[in-house]
Amino acid sequence: MGNDGSNLPEEIVRAIRQVVGEGDKALHEPVFKGREWDYLKECLDSGYVSSVGEFVTRFERALEEYTGAAHAIAVVNGTAALHIALLLAGVEADDEVLVPALGFIATANAVSYCGALPHFVDCEPLGLGVDAARLRDYLGDIAARRNGVCVNRKTGRVIRALVPVHLFGHISDMDALLAVAEEYGLRVIEDAAEALGSVRHGRHAGTWGQLGILSFNGNKIITTGGGGAILTDDEKLAARARHLTTTAKEPHPWRYRHDEVGYNFRMPNINAALGYAQLEQLPAFLQVKRRLFSRYEEAFSPLSGLRLLEEPGGCRSNYWLQTLVLNEDMAAWQEQILEHAWKQGLMLRPAWELLNRQIPYRHMPSMPVVVAESLQQRIINLPSGVVQEAAHE
Amino acid sequence: MGNDGSNLPEEIVRAIRQVVGEGDKALHEPVFKGREWDYLKECLDSGYVSSVGEFVTRFERALEEYTGAAHAIAVVNGTAALHIALLLAGVEADDEVLVPALGFIATANAVSYCGALPHFVDCEPLGLGVDAARLRDYLGDIAARRNGVCVNRKTGRVIRALVPVHLFGHISDMDALLAVAEEYGLRVIEDAAEALGSVRHGRHAGTWGQLGILSFNGNKIITTGGGGAILTDDEKLAARARHLTTTAKEPHPWRYRHDEVGYNFRMPNINAALGYAQLEQLPAFLQVKRRLFSRYEEAFSPLSGLRLLEEPGGCRSNYWLQTLVLNEDMAAWQEQILEHAWKQGLMLRPAWELLNRQIPYRHMPSMPVVVAESLQQRIINLPSGVVQEAAHE
Repeated sequence: MGNDGSNLPEEIVRAIRQVVGEGDKALHEPVFKGREWDYLKECLDSGYVSSVGEFVTRFERALEEYTGAAHAIAVVNGTAALHIALLLAGVEADDEVLVPALGFIATANAVSYCGALPHFVDCEPLGLGVDAARLRDYLGDIAARRNGVCVNRKTGRVIRALVPVHLFGHISDMDALLAVAEEYGLRVIEDAAEALGSVRHGRHAGTWGQLGILSFNGNKIITTGGGGAILTDDEKLAARARHLTTTAKEPHPWRYRHDEVGYNFRMPNINAALGYAQLEQLPAFLQVKRRLFSRYEEAFSPLSGLRLLEEPGGCRSNYWLQTLVLNEDMAAWQEQILEHAWKQGLMLRPAWELLNRQIPYRHMPSMPVVVAESLQQRIINLPSGVVQEAAHE
Repeated sequence: MGNDGSNLPEEIVRAIRQVVGEGDKALHEPVFKGREWDYLKECLDSGYVSSVGEFVTRFERALEEYTGAAHAIAVVNGTAALHIALLLAGVEADDEVLVPALGFIATANAVSYCGALPHFVDCEPLGLGVDAARLRDYLGDIAARRNGVCVNRKTGRVIRALVPVHLFGHISDMDALLAVAEEYGLRVIEDAAEALGSVRHGRHAGTWGQLGILSFNGNKIITTGGGGAILTDDEKLAARARHLTTTAKEPHPWRYRHDEVGYNFRMPNINAALGYAQLEQLPAFLQVKRRLFSRYEEAFSPLSGLRLLEEPGGCRSNYWLQTLVLNEDMAAWQEQILEHAWKQGLMLRPAWELLNRQIPYRHMPSMPVVVAESLQQRIINLPSGVVQEAAHE
């Protein structure tokens, strides 16, 4: 294949087919080959399907054991988890919260639900996490630390927090980001929605910041149907998370007194039963995903003008979504590659539209996000479900 | 038993035991005796457990057929349903929304999530719904219709909407409430969280207002684990409900563009599978609940100083929670009755603390809620699950 890319869509489809075989292929499908049925039946037989129930506790304890977080609180989805985590971190109305421009809109929406404003930041060209060095320079230009909090000198608003997002399962450079946050007095809430099973220097995603969140949506590495979790080592924050997600009701057997505006966000037992069975299979899923990465690596090795996104140094990524990054001079091919692949039944996906360009967030503060702008035109996610690799077994 | 009530706690426990038998008795437990397991298995086998899936569609169509609403949109819970319904009805930040003081706090919380303020109103002494005649008088005193909207002359804020709540499954006097709403230009969103299966003049709860909501929480007449639904006859509102509850994403096979701040509120398929099986059993559940009411009626008939809450004229209530109302001169016994019953393993419940007295809502506008204040001290809900009656079969 020549570097002009004239044949690139066909070459890419051919390489993907080497890995996933024939037929329609979704981006990510769940696999239920463990004890899902057993636990769902046990849950039904117990009569507890709602937010009171043993599987919620079992799932939370298993998440704690797996991630190393002292506390895991299971909720209805990752967006709700992030919403509550931001409130717990002290995000208030009219605050600004630093959020990467490259990512799913739920991260910015959760900031909005607090009445706060997302303030967009750029990412690293290789690992895709927030670029700590450029963030430090940017804050040096526009912000100042006053009375322990970071103030945006342009808007006068408090920049309360930073939300690193571990895109496609690759953990951001948390050491560097925590150092910047420390310097400026920023709370750190990790959006690890895509990163269950990923570790950096032996430490699990979502356990670096004051709080972290996970997602168990249907397209994630494990699923509860819909679901998410808040992770924290802080016992008081954990207690407050449980309180806020259950309508902030004061404990009493029959009186209904609530001490603040709460939410109805706890995960139902039936979803936790599914999640508990899925979590048991996570180590096996992770192995399959690493093999899938190797297969794609082999299949794409003859092609030039692109690279496969590899786990950053010191990291063991979950490879939730396998990711192709086109070279800059190949960016113009992205749309044609997607069109051609979809016609062939391969449901590839580009990166999300940048958040600073989405209609509800166009007028929010933003640093120049040149790297995100470039990457957004060059990223293509490949069929990544465990089911793809199972075809080879 | 004498009218002085000296023996009332024991008498009441004895009457309840006649109906529910011995052993610990919860307020309301779900029963899974239909095709729950078949549908859950079918759902797992399909691989679709998340918010894309056939059972969501089947459950929504079945809800439409059952309630007569043109559109039902299944979401994660009743609170989320009400939050979205309020947004769809045009509730904006700094609006006021009329909400009964007697009810669960989720109704007021949903108003808060919109940035609006609950404005509390009183209820009828018999049916427990919002008292339309007194509401009209009150609005005559404090509000005026200006440019088609209702303005609170004291606060200057727009009173945008009225949320009738059908407590314990008894439908409010909707004809009278709709007339007041029409007169003052109020939108009407029915909180029918407790009223699936209830009809008034042949019309189902939640289908009288512009929008209505249902709940399928674990303690409701049917359950999806956690879940709720928005009901409306308006096709455009229904389309917007589907859009807002799925992150407001514009339709496109691979591009992620969102045209407003959306939510992640759609019901997962696995919860809908459970709901679909439960809904098939609703007619049978309703029959059991009517029989349960008759049994309680019989058991309590020798006792004086109290009454059982009966369905209002023209209504066929679902009798979600069986409700004892103490006479006014017996109110002082409420706490002792609850304590005695709990000690005997009967998990009775009083009405919720009034919303205008809850910490987050103490400073919200309120009409004098004298009837709600009196009833709150006199209501006691009895064990009401279908399982109670099944013991007699």
